Amino acid sequence: MARKKIAYLGPPGTFTEEATIKYDEKAQLLPFMSISAVVSAVETGIAEEGVVPIENSLEGSVTETLDLLIHDSGLLIRRELVLPIEHHLLTKPDVEAPQVNIIFSHPQALGQCRRFLERCFPKAQAVAALSTAAAVEQMMSSATPAAAIGTQRAATLHGARILARDIQDRSPNVTRFAVLAAQDHPPTNRDKTSVCFSFNDDHPGLLCAVLEEFARQSINLAKIESRPSKEGLGRYVFLVDLEGHREERMVGQVLDRARGKTSMFKILGSYPRHEERA
Amino acid sequence: MARKKIAYLGPPGTFTEEATIKYDEKAQLLPFMSISAVVSAVETGIAEEGVVPIENSLEGSVTETLDLLIHDSGLLIRRELVLPIEHHLLTKPDVEAPQVNIIFSHPQALGQCRRFLERCFPKAQAVAALSTAAAVEQMMSSATPAAAIGTQRAATLHGARILARDIQDRSPNVTRFAVLAAQDHPPTNRDKTSVCFSFNDDHPGLLCAVLEEFARQSINLAKIESRPSKEGLGRYVFLVDLEGHREERMVGQVLDRARGKTSMFKILGSYPRHEERA
Repeated sequence: MARKKIAYLGPPGTFTEEATIKYDEKAQLLPFMSISAVVSAVETGIAEEGVVPIENSLEGSVTETLDLLIHDSGLLIRRELVLPIEHHLLTKPDVEAPQVNIIFSHPQALGQCRRFLERCFPKAQAVAALSTAAAVEQMMSSATPAAAIGTQRAATLHGARILARDIQDRSPNVTRFAVLAAQDHPPTNRDKTSVCFSFNDDHPGLLCAVLEEFARQSINLAKIESRPSKEGLGRYVFLVDLEGHREERMVGQVLDRARGKTSMFKILGSYPRHEERA
Repeated sequence: MARKKIAYLGPPGTFTEEATIKYDEKAQLLPFMSISAVVSAVETGIAEEGVVPIENSLEGSVTETLDLLIHDSGLLIRRELVLPIEHHLLTKPDVEAPQVNIIFSHPQALGQCRRFLERCFPKAQAVAALSTAAAVEQMMSSATPAAAIGTQRAATLHGARILARDIQDRSPNVTRFAVLAAQDHPPTNRDKTSVCFSFNDDHPGLLCAVLEEFARQSINLAKIESRPSKEGLGRYVFLVDLEGHREERMVGQVLDRARGKTSMFKILGSYPRHEERA
């Protein structure tokens, strides 16, 4: 049987690859260099599923993913993946901490580990890299003793040693990824549904009227966010995640009633809820 | 008379500096290297105001600004500044386009200009920098003919030439900055108020009950966003921007009633609305 093909936002060694491997370690993974390329790969059949960051990621702009889902793509969210962002300090196997005088990483990763770096490597020079994966490559080929902030996976890929674990200043810091596909997920009884909608005018009661439809059936909201619409100044698109699957009868009816109160309403997909470990 | 001192997220040549100069060109600007350092500078009196990115910025994590405002700081939002993100391609004055074979910038700026770069500089190598400002410095001191993606201000600061203007793939792309101070802004009749609140349980009607208080008085929402609370899994903090000033009698009464329906309620500040140019 052919292995499932999954497109993801590359290159190898990034958090998106780590999330994709954790999701399906048997699949054939295809790295693409932009979020829109991942979406195109799934739309055209190069891959069956595509993994892109949707919240709080170093690697891609979340705005880009959301705009594609809202405006440009017919793909649905089939799964959500949640990965804790754990930054590690990697070196070549023979380099010790006192020797390190350059630290490579993506500027945001450097920012997220600022306090650790100031405390433990006050004299090391920070050097920017295009991704945490590229940082590890640069560190491994550096002539001067260096370190890189990167992932566990990048350490494995490049034969680096993990000198210090979990060095980010604040935790827990998570990134959320969406698995996109032509179909969303069948009901599992513990599901979530993402929708977006907007209104033709900005009367303040309109959003309330939609949220009341959910409240009346005790449907919990897991997330709500307003985003400027592309169509004009002062117009908004609302993104809402609610508990339940669109194929559950009661949820489907509520979604229909909500749709009737909006000028644009799009279901972005129903999929199993990520179970947080308490 | 002493000039007003404004702390901002540096270094010079970034979008935050550009927004700060546009806001008050006569002030003495003090660059600080992290968002929390800007906040501390204002809290301790080093500066009277501090400018930090609050939405969609290359330079700082918005999460960091919001977390500081919600949890850690008593500072208020005194103004909002909105700056269109305009990426320009800068070179040394004597370098022409066909010579360019390295392009420096912050990885996100490189990502936002990907299509332009693929079309016009398909063979140039992208090199990461810690900020768009640092990219321009690296370009100016590069031995090989190079270009950098940076701001108008960085071009002026470093004596670079603007070879191509407005090269980002999507526009309009704006960044929003907050001016933080001990006091928010007196009423101007065209104001906005930012609040955050949360609930002790996640009954779906609770958010609705708060939003209804606003709707009942026809108070427009300019933004709504839920963010995971730091206090526990499954708990949320809601961030809402509403039209009006907290010192207007009707707005103040509605805020009080809303406060009564929440377990945590914090006013982040009232300030003049940014006027969008249509």
